[in-house]
Amino acid sequence: MSFKVPEGDNRERHVCDGCGVIHYINPRIIAGTLPTYEGKVLLCRRAIEPRKGYWTLPAGFMENGETSAEAAARETIEEAEARVNIHGLYTVFNLPHISQVYLFYRADVIDGQYGVGVESLESQLFDEQDIPWNELAFPTIHRTLQHYFEDRKTDQFPVRTEDLRPPYRKP
Amino acid sequence: MSFKVPEGDNRERHVCDGCGVIHYINPRIIAGTLPTYEGKVLLCRRAIEPRKGYWTLPAGFMENGETSAEAAARETIEEAEARVNIHGLYTVFNLPHISQVYLFYRADVIDGQYGVGVESLESQLFDEQDIPWNELAFPTIHRTLQHYFEDRKTDQFPVRTEDLRPPYRKP
Repeated sequence: MSFKVPEGDNRERHVCDGCGVIHYINPRIIAGTLPTYEGKVLLCRRAIEPRKGYWTLPAGFMENGETSAEAAARETIEEAEARVNIHGLYTVFNLPHISQVYLFYRADVIDGQYGVGVESLESQLFDEQDIPWNELAFPTIHRTLQHYFEDRKTDQFPVRTEDLRPPYRKP
Repeated sequence: MSFKVPEGDNRERHVCDGCGVIHYINPRIIAGTLPTYEGKVLLCRRAIEPRKGYWTLPAGFMENGETSAEAAARETIEEAEARVNIHGLYTVFNLPHISQVYLFYRADVIDGQYGVGVESLESQLFDEQDIPWNELAFPTIHRTLQHYFEDRKTDQFPVRTEDLRPPYRKP
């Protein structure tokens, strides 16, 4: 493998010296949900690094062949053992320093049923006043929850887009 | 390279037999703009396949290290030689059959200046009645333009999300 600018391109890429195939490396999409039931928000405590032991919304890498909403629903089953009805896209975050784009969807937990997936230590429905703000795993989680509780006052949930770069400031 | 399920995973991946590195292949993001100037929309006619000779909005693969809005603005310079002020995210399309996610931003063409990038045959500002609807390159372009002219009636441009799968129906 060489690292060079292919013909007709303007960036260095990993190119196979044997067959000439160009291995493009592009930003990854993380899809997740903001799962709610009777006004409470479902959070999971991470069993794996990074940020093991901290609370998160269910989310993970989108896979080939699925839509972002399907990816978000799948991750919610995997991490919180909760089936959801997806409402709409809610937050879109760019994290250019790590080449990630987050897409969170608002969702209802069907029948309020949930469990603990293999990548989680526990799952719990939280009222707004009980959200563990100082033990959230990532800025994307923090911002999605902040937007949600603010937007809930007016019951209007437009798509919120933000770029998140370090250093992150506490609100 | 082997194609197998890595430990702790649930999908087959390309894994290097030598060093064990897992080569994940994930959906790609295509970022673009809907560039307007004095009520007209800037389209480019494609100089490359696929859909050579058909009209498109400036868009292309998002690169590592940039935000989706930066990618959209960069592609607009590359394909239409137009600098833009980005307004907001406008359309989000999932194309799961080809594992792509499109993000289009509304944008103003600064000073109405544009040209013809190396991947374009020509560029042109179109009034609504002159849009070449039957010569558009992709369904994502068609739908973004349809939403735009519809939403312009009320001057409200909420984010529009859609899954697009073949066969595409003409509107």
